[in-house]
Amino acid sequence: MKQTVIRFSVSIPSQLAHDFDRMMREKGYHNRSLAVADMIRDQLVEHQQQLGQDEIAGSITLVYDHHRHHLQDLLTDLQHEHRAVIISALHCHLDHDNCLEILAVRGHPAEIKHLADELIAAKGVKHGKLVITTTGKNLPA
Amino acid sequence: MKQTVIRFSVSIPSQLAHDFDRMMREKGYHNRSLAVADMIRDQLVEHQQQLGQDEIAGSITLVYDHHRHHLQDLLTDLQHEHRAVIISALHCHLDHDNCLEILAVRGHPAEIKHLADELIAAKGVKHGKLVITTTGKNLPA
Amino acid sequence: MKQTVIRFSVSIPSQLAHDFDRMMREKGYHNRSLAVADMIRDQLVEHQQQLGQDEIAGSITLVYDHHRHHLQDLLTDLQHEHRAVIISALHCHLDHDNCLEILAVRGHPAEIKHLADELIAAKGVKHGKLVITTTGKNLPA
Amino acid sequence: MKQTVIRFSVSIPSQLAHDFDRMMREKGYHNRSLAVADMIRDQLVEHQQQLGQDEIAGSITLVYDHHRHHLQDLLTDLQHEHRAVIISALHCHLDHDNCLEILAVRGHPAEIKHLADELIAAKGVKHGKLVITTTGKNLPA
Repeated sequence: MKQTVIRFSVSIPSQLAHDFDRMMREKGYHNRSLAVADMIRDQLVEHQQQLGQDEIAGSITLVYDHHRHHLQDLLTDLQHEHRAVIISALHCHLDHDNCLEILAVRGHPAEIKHLADELIAAKGVKHGKLVITTTGKNLPA
Repeated sequence: MKQTVIRFSVSIPSQLAHDFDRMMREKGYHNRSLAVADMIRDQLVEHQQQLGQDEIAGSITLVYDHHRHHLQDLLTDLQHEHRAVIISALHCHLDHDNCLEILAVRGHPAEIKHLADELIAAKGVKHGKLVITTTGKNLPA
Repeated sequence: MKQTVIRFSVSIPSQLAHDFDRMMREKGYHNRSLAVADMIRDQLVEHQQQLGQDEIAGSITLVYDHHRHHLQDLLTDLQHEHRAVIISALHCHLDHDNCLEILAVRGHPAEIKHLADELIAAKGVKHGKLVITTTGKNLPA
Repeated sequence: MKQTVIRFSVSIPSQLAHDFDRMMREKGYHNRSLAVADMIRDQLVEHQQQLGQDEIAGSITLVYDHHRHHLQDLLTDLQHEHRAVIISALHCHLDHDNCLEILAVRGHPAEIKHLADELIAAKGVKHGKLVITTTGKNLPA
């Protein structure tokens, strides 16, 4: 069965496009559409992982350029809104521009997932990852 | 400084495009380009690790029972041995028994991977995860 | 929102005024009013502690040798007992032996004072200091 | 010998002036000039404590309102400039407005003192304290 195909255009910074093309070739892809499709599938799998209702603990790791206009205000505002699930944030000054920020989180899975999504989607955040683990209560050592 | 932007078009199966759009909205992205750019950065970070000798940054998230005999001594000894790659450690007391400990790390990928493996393998550590990200230097915004 | 400002005049010995001006400049203040306002806030924070039942925030800074027998177990046990007032602990590995540990605390002044006293008195803790500040709620900007 | 007296005027927020007057009375001062003079003497003593040349470790504890315009940008810029002496920063979201930020520092005493002075003098920082301790090397347990 032939599947319908949808075509859309994407605009990204030229340096990023260049790095993408190199990585794509190194990974053995012959066109960008296949590479993008696989990336989307990867993210869908992660995104669809069903989260339960039990309290969880974990971390959100972010790298960003603190000179980026309004970025830090935005990240702090988001964190204060969701402060109920943030234990605290560890901030490391990597170089003149780049920050590594790690949030220790605890609480309802959906709120933590939502917070992580918002932080990682913020324009200027270069990379971000949510690690969900357990509060240890229900996990035998 | 305005960065040059490159535009290209992508063709993907319609069901995948549909799922992508939904996920994108749920994650808080307002257009596909930003979402695709973040996916590319995510893959670049992972890809660079596999090949790389470049300095990386990241986090190691651990949950353990601090009452476990000798566990904390062991974890601290391991950390002091590898203190060259540990920026600092954030320790959260989850309940009477359980600790959430998050290490901010930076340095050579192999040493960080080795440290994470040793910590996570320590008897009494209930769960652990290494997140490798970038120092931001080689990652276009 | 513009805050009302009150203006009053102060008479002090000329040598003291001279020393104040030099210290002010060395600390980076550009006018006496800002420097005086900060001194008043500093004293208010201290003053409120002495009287008070109000929730406070602060930090406990410790330096210790983690090889010291049972010391780390003791410090962790004490912290878990008082975890209601500990937001989290930041642990830095200074060298092969020495640790810098900083606790972010929040809660009832008496419990925080008691916790700090116990930690600092622990055999093997080389130096410790409690800083009591405010949660910011009752301190005018 | 009669000492010359200098008179200058000070403008501070009215709520702060009100709290100052109450504290002054509770402490037994009969006029503002005497109270201000004593505060200045207190700060001079602290400020004049001679710092050696040996490497030190310590913490800087700050409370501030993150909504204050440009404050967070300023604090982060200052920290990145002095990142050589900052191990990392622990950030706690106290309520909707107020942040408790604690920096773990290590390095040359003069640079650390200078950084602390600049951070504490920043307009909008409600309260700040530097704790200087030892790296533990030269201090017997």
